[in-house]
Amino acid sequence: MTLETRTPRILDGTATAKAIRREVAEGCVELLRERGVTPGLTVVLIGDDPASAIYVGGKEKAATAAGIASKVVRLPGDAGEARVLETVAALNADPAVHGVLVQLPLPGDVDAHRVIEAIDPRKDVDGFHPVNAGRLATGLPGGFVPCTPAGIVELLRRHDIPLAGRHAVVLGRSNIVGKPMALLLLAENCTVTVCHSRTADLPRVAAGADLLVAAVGRRAMVTAEFVKPGAVVVDVGIHRVEDEVTCRDLYGDDPKRLAALRNRGATLVGDVHPLQVRERASWITPVPGGVGPLTIAMLLANTLTAARRAAGVG
Amino acid sequence: MTLETRTPRILDGTATAKAIRREVAEGCVELLRERGVTPGLTVVLIGDDPASAIYVGGKEKAATAAGIASKVVRLPGDAGEARVLETVAALNADPAVHGVLVQLPLPGDVDAHRVIEAIDPRKDVDGFHPVNAGRLATGLPGGFVPCTPAGIVELLRRHDIPLAGRHAVVLGRSNIVGKPMALLLLAENCTVTVCHSRTADLPRVAAGADLLVAAVGRRAMVTAEFVKPGAVVVDVGIHRVEDEVTCRDLYGDDPKRLAALRNRGATLVGDVHPLQVRERASWITPVPGGVGPLTIAMLLANTLTAARRAAGVG
Repeated sequence: MTLETRTPRILDGTATAKAIRREVAEGCVELLRERGVTPGLTVVLIGDDPASAIYVGGKEKAATAAGIASKVVRLPGDAGEARVLETVAALNADPAVHGVLVQLPLPGDVDAHRVIEAIDPRKDVDGFHPVNAGRLATGLPGGFVPCTPAGIVELLRRHDIPLAGRHAVVLGRSNIVGKPMALLLLAENCTVTVCHSRTADLPRVAAGADLLVAAVGRRAMVTAEFVKPGAVVVDVGIHRVEDEVTCRDLYGDDPKRLAALRNRGATLVGDVHPLQVRERASWITPVPGGVGPLTIAMLLANTLTAARRAAGVG
Repeated sequence: MTLETRTPRILDGTATAKAIRREVAEGCVELLRERGVTPGLTVVLIGDDPASAIYVGGKEKAATAAGIASKVVRLPGDAGEARVLETVAALNADPAVHGVLVQLPLPGDVDAHRVIEAIDPRKDVDGFHPVNAGRLATGLPGGFVPCTPAGIVELLRRHDIPLAGRHAVVLGRSNIVGKPMALLLLAENCTVTVCHSRTADLPRVAAGADLLVAAVGRRAMVTAEFVKPGAVVVDVGIHRVEDEVTCRDLYGDDPKRLAALRNRGATLVGDVHPLQVRERASWITPVPGGVGPLTIAMLLANTLTAARRAAGVG
């Protein structure tokens, strides 16, 4: 028997996101032509967290490029919950706004649950409102699914990865990724296991997966022992790598990563250890260029859906 | 090494349900004394399905015994969806009614989803409304959890079965049992796997469970090979056994079962094969007297909770 070093195939999130964004753009043109409606997305940004500002900027730019009327409502960090709720109420009432998104995290004195529940479920393009979580959980149509897990299903579907009857293991149980991911994969007829920080013998459970989704938020935690040979591995994490020793541990002598480290001071890695998992997986998502671009693409798709529903189309 | 024939311990649903019903009765007395409020439960029964009539009768009797003001609104099988929705709207508006339950299944021309969504979520003591499903899925308080899985968690808790870190496998993915069961066990820090008709190699996956919940609706499908030695096995199924050959296969020479068959023409069995699983499990739920009694007990508990919330208590 010969030991082969295999190279897994790449689940290309950048290309898939581009295709989705193009479809959304076409849908916007069609909705404008047929109903005179331009989808509107408004993001509420509270405070001056630099990471949030970058995320919101990315959403605004992508929305505009797709033909969505994009606005950002900026509130000061000390605006307080009442003012946030008033802002949401005004957006709920505005017929030109089809999607409302409050950028998380919120300042400490603003209750995220109350803010999310204040958003009209028909405009909740993040899919975080309990009504939409309930529609997903119970299989009812007409809701919105959180963008990251929805994007992962699109990514797998567009790469013809079979799901029915496969054993999916989801590492992480957040409301934003882990739980909706599990429910979506269950609806795709996967056998689904959800793991978390309290899971006993995590590597062994993960190694049962045909499809492994890592959303643990810990850098390169998913090592070779977590991965069954031939598994499809989806990496939701994103972390900075700023030193060469770590970079070489994760990427070996990859010249592109070492150049990024030298030129920009950092490269990126996910929850999956790339060098170790590369030799086992049949398909992997790269970081960057895997799951990341899909989240924004699905946000645009949800906004178009909201506008189409408001216009009584489809 | 000696082969021992072990006898599993019994998860006594009858006794647990009795304890819960007594606590509900005490809560009703307290609510009346402190707020002058008697919890009210109204069940809407459509058509003349004999099984539904029996279930509704059982609910009415148990509610009355606990001190809940119980009513049944009977509609003819051909009432139609509009009339069912009108009935629900009237109950939503009635301040004396704290819990509203529409007995399933519904006649073919009445859409169950629309009827369930019409119930005020604050009165949805079955926990089937998408808002309540979403609260369960996202861990928000203030909702209602479907009675059967909620009862199973109570049963395990009151028998001091540890859950955190254990691997639970749920067989079945219905909105009434499988999915809410999985979400509840996840909230109890179990690692949770959901299996269904499309699961490959079901016995092997089930045999990974420390806690196995069978809700497949197939008589005695869970045989020895599904059960890891020492597992806790919860049986949600209930099926009639009407012939002696099957009875002996399931229960051996158990004189009580054979007597039931002779005297009443039938005995009962669940989704679990009792004779085969008895030799492996550490704990099992009997059928009858396991999960069944808990469903009604939790319905009463949910009704008391609804009345307490309406009265602004706790």
